[in-house]
Amino acid sequence: MLPTTEELLIALKGILSQDQVSINQTILEQHSKDESYHTPSLPDIVVFPATTEEVSNILKLASGFKVPVIPFGRGTSLEGHVIPYKKGITIDFSLMNKVLEIREQDFLVKVQPGVTRTQLNKELKKYGLFFSVDPGADATLGGMAATNASGTTSVRYGVMRDQVRDLEVVLADGTVIHTGSLAEKSSSGLHLNGLFVGSEGTLGCFTELTLRVYGIPEYIMAARASFPTVHDAVSAVVSILSAGIPIARVELVDEQSMKQVNLFSDTDYQVKPTLFLEFHGNKAGLKQDVEFMKEIVADCQCEGIEFETDQAALNRLWEARHNLAYAYIHGYPDKKMMTTDVCLPISELAGAIEHAREELNKLGLTGGIVGHVGDGNFHTVLMIDTNNSEEIKKAEEFNESIVLHALERGGTCTGEHGVGVGKQKYQEREHGEALKVMEKIKMALDPENLMNPNKIMKF
Amino acid sequence: MLPTTEELLIALKGILSQDQVSINQTILEQHSKDESYHTPSLPDIVVFPATTEEVSNILKLASGFKVPVIPFGRGTSLEGHVIPYKKGITIDFSLMNKVLEIREQDFLVKVQPGVTRTQLNKELKKYGLFFSVDPGADATLGGMAATNASGTTSVRYGVMRDQVRDLEVVLADGTVIHTGSLAEKSSSGLHLNGLFVGSEGTLGCFTELTLRVYGIPEYIMAARASFPTVHDAVSAVVSILSAGIPIARVELVDEQSMKQVNLFSDTDYQVKPTLFLEFHGNKAGLKQDVEFMKEIVADCQCEGIEFETDQAALNRLWEARHNLAYAYIHGYPDKKMMTTDVCLPISELAGAIEHAREELNKLGLTGGIVGHVGDGNFHTVLMIDTNNSEEIKKAEEFNESIVLHALERGGTCTGEHGVGVGKQKYQEREHGEALKVMEKIKMALDPENLMNPNKIMKF
Repeated sequence: MLPTTEELLIALKGILSQDQVSINQTILEQHSKDESYHTPSLPDIVVFPATTEEVSNILKLASGFKVPVIPFGRGTSLEGHVIPYKKGITIDFSLMNKVLEIREQDFLVKVQPGVTRTQLNKELKKYGLFFSVDPGADATLGGMAATNASGTTSVRYGVMRDQVRDLEVVLADGTVIHTGSLAEKSSSGLHLNGLFVGSEGTLGCFTELTLRVYGIPEYIMAARASFPTVHDAVSAVVSILSAGIPIARVELVDEQSMKQVNLFSDTDYQVKPTLFLEFHGNKAGLKQDVEFMKEIVADCQCEGIEFETDQAALNRLWEARHNLAYAYIHGYPDKKMMTTDVCLPISELAGAIEHAREELNKLGLTGGIVGHVGDGNFHTVLMIDTNNSEEIKKAEEFNESIVLHALERGGTCTGEHGVGVGKQKYQEREHGEALKVMEKIKMALDPENLMNPNKIMKF
Repeated sequence: MLPTTEELLIALKGILSQDQVSINQTILEQHSKDESYHTPSLPDIVVFPATTEEVSNILKLASGFKVPVIPFGRGTSLEGHVIPYKKGITIDFSLMNKVLEIREQDFLVKVQPGVTRTQLNKELKKYGLFFSVDPGADATLGGMAATNASGTTSVRYGVMRDQVRDLEVVLADGTVIHTGSLAEKSSSGLHLNGLFVGSEGTLGCFTELTLRVYGIPEYIMAARASFPTVHDAVSAVVSILSAGIPIARVELVDEQSMKQVNLFSDTDYQVKPTLFLEFHGNKAGLKQDVEFMKEIVADCQCEGIEFETDQAALNRLWEARHNLAYAYIHGYPDKKMMTTDVCLPISELAGAIEHAREELNKLGLTGGIVGHVGDGNFHTVLMIDTNNSEEIKKAEEFNESIVLHALERGGTCTGEHGVGVGKQKYQEREHGEALKVMEKIKMALDPENLMNPNKIMKF
């Protein structure tokens, strides 16, 4: 029989200090939702552990009581990942927020899961280093590993999974394991790093992460290039990649979204389908690459290209891009955001974006298209009135149409946001028989189904 | 009760043609060993499937009879991976050797598991593309995925796991799954690609691989730089990496091994600790990088550096390096090769190589040190008389000392060769409680323990 909240509270206060356990209504509400349109739901209790040992004790206790556990970073997920639909204990990692070690020569850093990406980069800057993965939100690194987050730089540096050298994980029964080592590469054992990254809290809680970092490039050059159509912009990216020009970032922002950018970020960029590009390297090499690139974009009907090399202009450009989601949220204060997140082989990208635009028009929905086009990943940002069931229905119809279009062409239903509850309905369609393998692994590691239950898989 | 070989033979001939099933003694012997010193052992039967469906039927049959199954590529593994110590059916993939599809724009290729890396590169060259992973042997791509192979280029392009976008896998019960998609990145489901790569046939047989390929770089420059000591050479690599110079390859070959190279490859390279380096990029960028690198190596006591840019000289250089293992085998025809394969954080590399050299001298063993030093991975190549139990004991003592030294410093017992049977004894030491997680996954996916049993894990 499940314990009452009162019993659970007493037990948790036996292993944690008073102020590490909360049933305060405001705290519960803060942990009932993420940044998506998914319906909130309160946890029974929120705990704030400070050490791996405390996390292990919490999981032992929860496992004894058979109570669900939901790890929580900053609640910036976009598919309901952290919403405790089955109640239970939410573990908030905000007290575990230390950068533990920086190994300059090894390009490695060891952090606690509650460290955010901007916090880490501030620390790394002192060493001439940076951490590459940059989702829109200032998420925690634990959360970013849990969803296999990426962002604008993965075309050059890879996604979150590529950066994780080792995770300390507390399993459902409280056992503490390490999934990797400090070595750059390994063929030892089964590869647990890759499996736990992107597991969305369904296999265990991350309590320490060892991550790959990079030297700040000698020279950075950024550009904004505008095009008559989205199709022309995507063609330009395909041509640049095919020419072997190493892009560090390439973001597509459509006309509608450029309007939001200008409104929110106080810029006066041209309101046209635009590529935001960045190149990292040495000065001589970049100069040659950029000359070549200019020829390529000209062949793709580019209507104007502007370069920036000074740091202030670079920062303004990328802040404008990063704030885009918030620009939409700010622009539609009564609505909530729904974001599509498919990723396709790049040869299918232009067609997929055209299809998305047609569907938007057909359904009469307001939305902008933005994307990490170098990876074949794009988002449609929709602002929807969650009190209007007709509008939700239309938005879901739209999302489904985008997902099916991608899956039919070898793509995935989520390039970087993860499954949570929002993409569960596409898991069987995308993975087929492999979904059963995932379920077997989940049941082997968490037989009582207590770790963030009913996320990714439907049980 | 297990079937007799005769019964198994009859059953297999019911689902395959006559010439796809063999109990010929020569064939059995060819499939009883790999390129290592591990004791050979014959399979009961060797089969040669031509399609995924045939592989699935073989596994269904084997699973019904509860007979072990061992996937086999070209037998170039180095830790006894393909030796059928528990007998059973060896599946030889040599008939499944087609390049199925090349998607130029997507930088993807779909191949059958029996395609070798040189066969693939020959095909890709027509499109201006290449496949980056290059272990010493001309292994099959299925085998390379099974061991998470790497080689000289992983410092720039990553290891085998980084190239695998999707695997078609036949599981122990004959079910066919796909572990990924054609998308460059995905946060959908649990990440099975990473788990199956490096699983050494213990979770299933690969029947199709979709792999990332790269454009042949505009400009390639290679160099040989010799140093008074191995320590100086490693320091130079650490400095080059810290300076952010993007190396495509950096190989260390010690004095002893340079002798073997010259003997076998008919070169007259200086007999000194030597770095073989390669840089990929555009001409202007490389020129700047190379000037900077010259300054760095001069600071590290470099005694001479020679550059090559013409294709013939480049080929000669890398062939000499690739043939090193064969140079040793050729030089000691009565002995067998044992190769250590640790990988450490690069700050620990120079110390580890010094330790290896001291241990070699202390034990009076003959061996050369070579390594992919940009990754922190090095090998000691020992030629041992497998009839001399004293020599085997010494070599194993040496290997153990190298492994423990690496594990104590956050390294791994195998950077690229895999576990097979040779590195099993270090699995608990390296992975601790995580080994139990690996065992649970294995038992969840192969409950009868029929897929390459007693490899990686001891059961």
